[in-house]
Order: sequence, then structure tokens, then C-alpha cells
Amino acid sequence: MRDPIDRILEPSSIAVVGASSDPSKRGYQAIETLQTGGYEGTIYPVNPSADEIRGLEVFASIADVPEPVDLALIVVPGPVVPSVLEDCGEIDVGGAVVIAVGFGETGKEGEALEEEIVSLAAENDVRLVGPNTSGLINVGDGANLVGADGVPEGDLGLLCQSGNLAIALFTEAAGREGVGFSHYVGVGNEADLQFDEYLPYFERTEDTDAVVCYVEGFSDGRSFLEQARETGTETPIVVCKSGRSDVGKRSASSHTGSLAGDAAVADAVFRQAGVVSVDRSDELLAAADALASQPPVDGENVAILADGGGHATLAADALAERGLSVPQLADETQRRLEGILPDAASVRNPVDVAGGTDDNPSVFADCALALFDDPNVDAVLLSGLFGGYGQRFTDDLEPIEQGAAKEIAEAAAATETPLVVQSAYESTDPETHTILREHDVPVYESLDISVACLDALSTYGTHLQVADEKSSFELDSASADSPDGARALEDCATDSTLSEYDAKALLEEYGAPVTPYALAETATDAERAAAEFDGPVAMKVVSPDIVHKTEADAVALDVADESVRSTHETLLENARAYDPDAAIDGVLVSPMRSDGVEVIVGATRDEQFGPVVMFGLGGVFVEVLEDVAFRAAPLTEHDARAMLDDIDAQDVLEGTRGDPPVDRDAIVDVLLSVSRLVADYPEIAEVDLNPVLAGDGGAEILDASIVLESSDGDADSDDGRQPQEPDAVPDGGVDE
Amino acid sequence: MRDPIDRILEPSSIAVVGASSDPSKRGYQAIETLQTGGYEGTIYPVNPSADEIRGLEVFASIADVPEPVDLALIVVPGPVVPSVLEDCGEIDVGGAVVIAVGFGETGKEGEALEEEIVSLAAENDVRLVGPNTSGLINVGDGANLVGADGVPEGDLGLLCQSGNLAIALFTEAAGREGVGFSHYVGVGNEADLQFDEYLPYFERTEDTDAVVCYVEGFSDGRSFLEQARETGTETPIVVCKSGRSDVGKRSASSHTGSLAGDAAVADAVFRQAGVVSVDRSDELLAAADALASQPPVDGENVAILADGGGHATLAADALAERGLSVPQLADETQRRLEGILPDAASVRNPVDVAGGTDDNPSVFADCALALFDDPNVDAVLLSGLFGGYGQRFTDDLEPIEQGAAKEIAEAAAATETPLVVQSAYESTDPETHTILREHDVPVYESLDISVACLDALSTYGTHLQVADEKSSFELDSASADSPDGARALEDCATDSTLSEYDAKALLEEYGAPVTPYALAETATDAERAAAEFDGPVAMKVVSPDIVHKTEADAVALDVADESVRSTHETLLENARAYDPDAAIDGVLVSPMRSDGVEVIVGATRDEQFGPVVMFGLGGVFVEVLEDVAFRAAPLTEHDARAMLDDIDAQDVLEGTRGDPPVDRDAIVDVLLSVSRLVADYPEIAEVDLNPVLAGDGGAEILDASIVLESSDGDADSDDGRQPQEPDAVPDGGVDE
Repeated sequence: MRDPIDRILEPSSIAVVGASSDPSKRGYQAIETLQTGGYEGTIYPVNPSADEIRGLEVFASIADVPEPVDLALIVVPGPVVPSVLEDCGEIDVGGAVVIAVGFGETGKEGEALEEEIVSLAAENDVRLVGPNTSGLINVGDGANLVGADGVPEGDLGLLCQSGNLAIALFTEAAGREGVGFSHYVGVGNEADLQFDEYLPYFERTEDTDAVVCYVEGFSDGRSFLEQARETGTETPIVVCKSGRSDVGKRSASSHTGSLAGDAAVADAVFRQAGVVSVDRSDELLAAADALASQPPVDGENVAILADGGGHATLAADALAERGLSVPQLADETQRRLEGILPDAASVRNPVDVAGGTDDNPSVFADCALALFDDPNVDAVLLSGLFGGYGQRFTDDLEPIEQGAAKEIAEAAAATETPLVVQSAYESTDPETHTILREHDVPVYESLDISVACLDALSTYGTHLQVADEKSSFELDSASADSPDGARALEDCATDSTLSEYDAKALLEEYGAPVTPYALAETATDAERAAAEFDGPVAMKVVSPDIVHKTEADAVALDVADESVRSTHETLLENARAYDPDAAIDGVLVSPMRSDGVEVIVGATRDEQFGPVVMFGLGGVFVEVLEDVAFRAAPLTEHDARAMLDDIDAQDVLEGTRGDPPVDRDAIVDVLLSVSRLVADYPEIAEVDLNPVLAGDGGAEILDASIVLESSDGDADSDDGRQPQEPDAVPDGGVDE
Repeated sequence: MRDPIDRILEPSSIAVVGASSDPSKRGYQAIETLQTGGYEGTIYPVNPSADEIRGLEVFASIADVPEPVDLALIVVPGPVVPSVLEDCGEIDVGGAVVIAVGFGETGKEGEALEEEIVSLAAENDVRLVGPNTSGLINVGDGANLVGADGVPEGDLGLLCQSGNLAIALFTEAAGREGVGFSHYVGVGNEADLQFDEYLPYFERTEDTDAVVCYVEGFSDGRSFLEQARETGTETPIVVCKSGRSDVGKRSASSHTGSLAGDAAVADAVFRQAGVVSVDRSDELLAAADALASQPPVDGENVAILADGGGHATLAADALAERGLSVPQLADETQRRLEGILPDAASVRNPVDVAGGTDDNPSVFADCALALFDDPNVDAVLLSGLFGGYGQRFTDDLEPIEQGAAKEIAEAAAATETPLVVQSAYESTDPETHTILREHDVPVYESLDISVACLDALSTYGTHLQVADEKSSFELDSASADSPDGARALEDCATDSTLSEYDAKALLEEYGAPVTPYALAETATDAERAAAEFDGPVAMKVVSPDIVHKTEADAVALDVADESVRSTHETLLENARAYDPDAAIDGVLVSPMRSDGVEVIVGATRDEQFGPVVMFGLGGVFVEVLEDVAFRAAPLTEHDARAMLDDIDAQDVLEGTRGDPPVDRDAIVDVLLSVSRLVADYPEIAEVDLNPVLAGDGGAEILDASIVLESSDGDADSDDGRQPQEPDAVPDGGVDE
């Protein structure tokens, strides 16, 4: 029995349900496209009122087809689809592509229809592609259910949530020698088959060397991360995810019915999963082709070989803009280059040949070979006019350039050095560039696109080096480390928010460092606790009914020993005045803390990717600058550590104004505790530890808020970007 | 008498000094290029040992040429150039292009040679282009001194500091219908003629509709700003300035001998001058062509018209990424679109025709016309597959598309609505796109490049709206507002740093609000001052010899009345212990201040652009995040106000955690005072007011440092990015 995805993407037989003898109809054109496109499998037209279409026998129902059907293309209107799926159950149908629109993307009625076809498909053992899709294509087999002409064949698999964007990519690829597609799948609304379910196929097929995804919103982003991490170690994956802006989100939602989610979260979890993410749609194809054709860049050090100072300078800037480095070359390399190039040349990185190639472009090869041998160099960017020397000077130089191109490409392959060529003459299509591309070397006119290719190769290569240290995204795995005695949330929670006391107790069970605290029911209890803590204390009323304690005047900071008793009374009075019906557990007493850097650790449930841990610096860094790092839980230690390097203001952790650096290990421990907690308890909607005070020898959680999913099962409407601010002032006892 | 720039850029006669009869030499090729390129002026080959070259009479020296020479192309080696310039003095030569390298870009010896040719050129009344240039071209006249073949003619003037980048731009333009150049000038080392001096020509010539500049470093950036602001109101200017990164800076310096300066400063002052600046070299030509062909965008509101949800969503994201808006359409527009499009379409912005154009692409025109009429819309982006309908569906649609293209382009022109078209079919070069381009509508394959065009048009249009409110960059103009009685800096300064007392006094004369202060020589003076200030005070030793007061333990904060006397003594003791030879003026006594937001106002002299004012928030915002705004002095009030909106953390000024918004007018006044001060005194190298405490009803400078140019005339090595930190702690009396 073949895997359904194999049957769908390599169908031996295709039924066209809604076949037509009218050449203007999709049901006719689909058959025509298959026949003229060289599809060699069997085609079964299905139509209750026709006998023959384009020379083929027509079946009244798919149920009448006498053999198993690998793939059904359903072109009938949406409301008719359910009955077709029922018919499918009569025979063995592997998968069905549902073209119709009017499902989940249109509102309640459409959603109901979508649910209906999903359950009918399951009952009848048919996997669904779409609905709301332009179809799918196996380019090599001619199994083209889309009708797009002239899709260039190549080694890219395309999963796409926009038919028109697929056409744009086909057209772009057609204009680029050596770039093309093995398959296209219009995933549509992902009603049944999701992005992730296609990935293992691309991993096992020889035809695909990289996967390109255009995504508006995942129906199950967590599964995508899990599978992408797995597939990506063999077959690199590039994603362009739209809906980054507010208007874009709205547009995505009306297009595929998907929730686009938060772009910062998506960027972070893609990186965590080793998925290369591009913001610009004009970099998507180039990045994918580079990943399919070049080895990954094992680092970020790029040597620039340019035939002019302008390109050398611009290339250095463009690399730096993307966080890639232009390292010094080894002494030996510099000596080699000095032996090759004229005095005016620069043999430092960037290398500027300064006219040294004008009468002999084979000098490019000599220089490139020196760079390939340099131990400081992870990749090479050749930038400027290579390929145009014949046009610029004399025709005699053309064969020399072509020889150099071959030599450079072969040496790059032999030394496994990733190489990208930028040339102003790309649009003139010289033979030199054809030779480079035949050797899998990308050539672009745009310097910035060329650098985007190197960036993609470096992102991917860097991920592969540490892939073992990153999260598997499997939520079950977290439980291994979970405390046995973690008290069940039901015991300590109201239906929406844990009291600060319960939240801190739960965090402690997960090994998180919490400032010492005592729940004082009476003023005497409070005095006893304060005496133990030795020094001024913070006091806060604990009540499941009072979330905004500051607003209720139910918080006092920096309370001296002698005032503890009266403060206890005042706080309780204030709380009762604020809400006479509030249940009050007592007053939480904690020692005041002041030394260290205020950081925030939080967690939310992203609507696409599930539990996500957040890290940032306190105060304006989060509230105004939104300078925060995200990772999907469960975190590995590597993930947690990387979060600290992710924020723009990371230098603050190194100590400013003479302060010592903070204890990064201690923050990492807090992040890991929170990660385990939210991985264990799907019912936790939000964790907000704000502030956590990180000093040079540890970290302490001063205030903690844990919010549960509301009882109807929905997460609250927070989009994960901004933690809800529990109180308007830092009520955890920071003395400022 | 013609303007020398006119003679250089529209030469009636050209002498080639170093002419050769060897076809492999530049001195031969230059003449060949002129003859075969259709140059109709007179050509004078100059060579002491030849009689005839390519049919032309040869002169032994340019001095022998019997008539005035508009332009001399000097192709002899650098060391011979001085004697040629002396010869030029014998007759009337307008300008000379010096191709040779080995001048300022190579070190001391080359710098001396460059100085020599500059003074010889002045003596002999010849303006110099270069040296270290590939030459210049008047494309229409065939006055091509470069030898580049097939430069496409068009309406862009190109000023370029890299010959190879010019070739790249020529080649890129050759691949784009309707894009080309009127002139190219390789400005080289700018030894004599600078970027700014070419601009007025481009303003007055009919042939040029936009100026494109590739700059590695300006020899006089201030003059460029002044002239660009002037020229730019008539003829838009686009700049790509490289050397943004550290490695790029180094590379630029070895290429053209220029100092690249600080990218953040350059970005800010370009915006101030109305110059459109692009970071990516692949956006330079597109932005310039858009500015040359489309009206400016008077705002930032763009309507998207897309034939698919994917492009609609991506376009919205790309516009948002660049700060452009996708506003709601007027109700009337939505109703009009509803009448045109099918139910599945989205008539909100982005407009998604959702198949409504598939069998009739003239529907695009109906939709576009509705958008052009919408008062909420400043510009329109048509995105998706327009121009490809004939290829996608049937040939019949091609003439319909072409008609729609004409209708859309004409309506855009009639309504003066800026329009850019993105089409996946751009590379297939359909007639529909030719029609659009013939109507000056840019068409690009890349969505991101299309959006870059709209961004350029919006930047330019927004500038034009407020151009009158921006700085003229003329330093003299500041003096009008200067205090008559400003005490001469000589009187109060040591040779490098003003004492805090003198700095504050000078600032006060310029109307800047300084926290009250008194210079107390004796402890009794200090007590008297403290009593007047009513409350705790800050005390700091004033000594021209002690810059780092905190290091010397010469600062005390929050001193209560009763401790003022003893603190006075202690501080003086500490200061004497720190530097027994220090001259001590006394102790500065000021009241403590604590309410408000800490901001920093500063000024530096940028090595390219002269006096530049800086604004940022205090502490980590400047030190860690480098979140600062720059503008060239003198500031207008508009400039100053815009600086407050420039910083990422601007929301802090609106008040965080319940604080009231700060008094923006008060900060603007401080900025304007500092601007006048540095515009008046070229000898001031650096002003650092850190902190300035801004509250809801005013602002006060708590600490001030003013540093003068060191006596050898060099500014200090600070690059203007990070103000020097005068002390490790905020010693101005912030109570924290």
C-alpha cells in the first residue's frame, strides 16, 4: 500500500470529477493539460451526462471507476463536494484536490462546509488537498492539475498558499537558467493535509533538493516546526510568511481564512527549527536555489573578490547589514594574492583586483583559488563585472572568462566552498554565467540578492552545526524533568488566574528561584515573617478576586519592621474597600530587593505555534521598544542561552555604568523552568514574571502572574507580543 | 563666457592629451569612441611625437591648439599631469578630466601630487574632474570619454565615485525599457570639482529629470546638502552612499581616499535636505527612474490593487515595512468597486479582484480609476499578473490588457496620481508593459523594488510639502539669532575644554535652560548658595584641569544643608589629591532635580557634513541602543521637532507608567540653542548636555560639557555617533 502523499504527488491515475466537453471549462482544460503535458498515467473523466471527452471514456460517478484512483481532481462547486467524497468511499481513492472556494475563508457557513468535507474525507479514507487551491503539479511526470504552462523543471518543491504567487515564482524561475520546480502543491485552506505533512515526501524524493513555502497562516504551526526540523537536516526549507503587518494580517485572513499570528514569534521559531525565513518575496526563489545548489556556509565569514572598489565597498556593507562578517584573510592568502595582483590592488578582504583582471580574467580564478584555501573563509562572493569582459574589452577575453568560470566553479566544489557570483552583466546572459550555473553556482545581477543567498546558506549551515542542541518541539518530552509533586493546577487556581502565592509556589516546584515569601493571615504572622527577612519588606494582598493590586491600594513597598503591623491592617482595609466581596487569603510578605538588572520572563500560547517563552529587559525595553526574544517551548539550554543574545539591548546584561555582568546561567534556569511548566500544562495561557532581578550571582523572581485558558477553551486575545502588564508599577519590590 | 560646467558637460571641443596611434591604448580608443559615437564637436589629439591619428591633426602640446578647448581628456600618467595643466594655461581650456590614479587615494605622496594639480588647475583657470575617474559622458552628444558601449540614453544624470558601478548601472538600465542616462560624471577623488558643483547644471538642463549619486565619501558634504536642497526642489536627487559598515568604510577609503563618515548621520541629513537615500544598490536605479517619471507622492497612503490574495498581502507587508500606509478606502470608492467586482473580491484596501479580471482585464482599469478618485489615496500600486493575461488565458485578452494599460496610465496622469506596477510577467516583456512605460509608469517584477519606488516618491513628496520649514544648511544664517553679548570663547576656555561653569554660562547666553548654579569659592559661599536653592544640592569641583570629576571624587550628590560646608572641604581635598597642580575655580553648587525624563542633547562636527546636533534619551538608550537622532545645524524648528519623532523610543516622551508627557517645546528650545551655538562657533568640536531633565512643564540642563577643536585644527577622533561620556555616573544631580 503506497503512502497517500506518494499517491497524491506521484499519481498513477487521476480522476477529473466535473469533467467537461466545453473547452472553456476547467473540467475540459484539466484533461487537455494532462494529455498535452505528457502525463502517462490513466485519466478518468467523471461526469454524469457525457460519454466521451477528448477521446477518453467518461464515468458517471467516481464510484464507477473500475480501479483504484490515486488522485481525484474535484472541480465541481463547493456544495457538491460532499457527495463526491461519499462516492470516493465506494472505491479506493488516495487523495482529492478540492479547487472550489467558499469554505473556511468566507465565514461561518463556509466553515461548516469545510468541517463537513473534512469528516467525509476521513470517513471515506481520502486525504484532501485544499480546498481553495489552484491544484498541484508533479512537473517531471506531467501530472499538472493547475493548467499553468511552461513550469520550469528543477529541484525545488513548492508549497504555496497563493496560486498567483506560484505563477509569479514559475515565471521568475523561467527567466533564470537552471532554476525550477519538481512539484507544486497549492495547500489552500489546509482543511485536511497541512504544510508539515508534505515535508517527509520532499525529504525522501530524489527530485527535490530544497522546499519553498509561501505561508499566510499555519493551521498547525507546531507540527510544521517539528517536521521541518526533521526534514530540514536533509532538505533545506525556505519560508516566506506574509501577514507581518496589521493590514497584511487582515488580508491573509480574508484570503485563506488563516490567522497570520505574530511575525516576531514566527521569525524566532523558524530560526529555532532551522527553517530559513525571508521577509522579501523577491528573495524567496534565490535563497531556495542557493540552498538547493550550494553547500551550507559553516559560519558567517565571507571573502569578497571584486573587480572594483565600488562593488567591494557595497558588498562589504550588504554583508554587514545582514550580520555576516568580512574577516581578515590569512597572511598566506594575502601573500598569494600579492603575487597575483598589481600593486594598486587591495589584498585584504574585500579583495579589489584594481584592473588586474582587465586583460586576463583568468586572474579571477587564481584569486578565487587562494580564497577557497583560506582557513578564515567560510564562503566567497565574487562581485562586479565577471562574465562581461568579452563585451567590455575584446572578444578574445570571452574564452578566457569561460575557462576561469569552469576553474572557479570546480575548485569551489572540490574545496566545498560555497560560492555566489554577482555580475552587472547577468542580464546579458553570457556563456560564462551559463557555465557557472551548470556547475550549480548562483549568479545574480543584484548584489543584495546575492548576499541574501549567502545569508540563507549561513543561517542554514549555522543551524546544522548546532541542530542537536535545539528543541525538537515535542511537547511530551518536557515531562521527563517535571516535578513529581507538582500540585495540580485545579487545586490552587480559580478559573482564570493563580494568586501570586500559588504562582510562586508552582514556580518553586519547577525549580525557579523566587524571592522568599510568606503568606501572612494575621498582622502577627506578617511581623514574624518580616523579622525573619531582616530588613524592609514588600507586602501585597493575596486574593483570587483582586488582580490589579496596585489599583486597589493593596501593595506596600519598602515597609520597615515597625510599620509591618499597621501596614497589614491598612492593606486589608483597602482591599475590602476596593471589593467588599473579595476572598482574601492574606498578605504576601517578601524582603525588598534592589541590586541587579530587571528582566522579564514570560510565556504565552501562540495561536499557530503553541507555547512560546519570552525574554526581555524590564521597563521601557519591553513596553516601549518591544525588544523581546521568543522561542517555542520546550527550550533546550542552547535555545534559552540564544534568547539572551537575541535582544537588541543585550549589552545591558554585560553590565552598564560599571555594574558587573549578570548571571546568565541563572536567567537561563528561569527560562528552562518556565518552559517545562508551560510544556507540562496546556491549560496555562500566560506566564509573566515581571520583574526578575538578575544579579551577578543569581536571579530572583520578584513578581509572578500565571493566567489559565478561560473556561470556554479559548486563549485570551493577547497576541503574544506584549505581555499583559499585571500592575502599573513594579510591585515586586524593586527599590528605585 | 559659458559656465565651466556647461563647457565640461556639453563640450564643443575636446582635446585628448596623451593621444595615441596604438589601438590598444586609451589615447587611441578615446578618439575612436568619440568619432564612432557621433560626437560632432572638434577633437584635438595631443601627442608630442605623432602627426596624425585616425585622420585628425595632432598637436605637440595642448598649448598649440589654435582655439579655445572646452574639455581636455588627460590620459597621461599622474606625474605628467602637472605639466599638462601648465600647458592648458597657455590657451583657454574650460575643464580637464584626469583619468590617472595614484593621487589622494594612495597616501602621502599621492596627496601631495593631488594638491599640486589642484593649485595648478586654479592658476591656469581649468576646472578638474577627478583624478582617479573613468571619465564622463554626455550621452546625447556622443561626448563619451569613458569608452563604455551602448549607454542607454534617458533622463537620469549620474554622479558616480566608481567606474564599475557606473557600468553596472548602464547595463541594468539597458535591460529596462525607457530607463537611461543624459550624463555620467565619474567624480573620482573630487580634488577640485565636487559633487555639489555639478548639481546646478542638472537643474537647468532640460535633458535631466533626476540625479543619481553613488558616493563613497564627500570631500565637502555640507556644500552638497546646501546645493542638493536647492536643486532637489526642481530635480530630485537619489543617493546611494556606501561605507556604511566598518569594513565598507575601510574599503571606501582605499578606493577613493574618502572618509565615509557615519551612516546614521548621513541618512538623517539627506532626509533633512530632501535627498532620497537608498541603502541597497539594487534599488538605486529604480528609485531614480520613479522620481524622474512619476509625480511625487504627497503623503504616505497607498492603495493596493491586486489580482490575488497573495500579492495583496505581501504588498501590504512590504509597504508597512517601509513606513507607508495602506489606508481604508472612502465609502464611495468601496461602493464603486462593489459594482465592478464579484462578491468574493475584497473592496477594502488591499483590493483583491478575486478572479474578477480573469476574463476581462479591462476591469483593472475600472478599479484603478476608482482608486485614483479616492481622496484617501496618495498613490496606487498595481500588483500581481497584469500584462500576463494573454499568456495565462487566451490571446484575445492581450488587446484588452493593452487598452486597459493605456486607460490606467492616462487616468493616472490626468489625476496626477503616482502609479507603480508590479507584475510577475515583467521578464516576458509584454506589449502591455511597453505601453505602461511609454506613459512613464514604472513596471517591476520585484514587489519590493516596486515598493522602494513608492517609498522614494513619498520621501520626496513629503519633503517638498515642508521644504520651506527645513534648514538651508547655511551656517551664516544662524548668527541672526545669536546673543550680542556672548562672551568670546577665548576668554573662558582652556585650549580644549570649557569648565562646566563656563559651559553653562555660554549656554545660558544662548537661551538654554540650565539648572540654577553658583560657583562657590569658599565653604561659606557654598552654604549661602545651598540655602538659596532650598533643598539638597549637587556639588562639583570646577577645574579646567579635571575633566573626569567622578574619577577624582570631586562630585557629591544629594548633599543636605548641614553637610554642605564639610562636603565643600572634602571635595577640594579630593581634587587636590587627584591632581596637586590643578587650577581650581571653586565648587559648583546646584539644586538636586529628579522629576522628568533624562534626555541627551549634543553636537559634534561630522567630518563630512560639519556641525550636527544629536538628540536621544539618556542612559542605556544612547549607550547601549544607540537610539539617537541627528540633524545638521542650523536647525529650523521643524527640524528640531522632527528629531524627537526620529528615535525608536519616542513613546517614552509621551510618558510611561502613568507619567505625564514631557514638554516637547522645551526640548526643541534646547536643541535650537545648541544649534545656534555650534553654528556660531566653528571652534566648538563637541557639546554634550547629559542629562537634560525634561518634565511636563520645561526642561533643564543638569550637566554640560563643551569641547573645542584641539589646537592643531583637527576635530577629535570621535565619529559623531556616540557622544563621549563625560563621567561614568550621571553627575548632574539626578536623584536615582
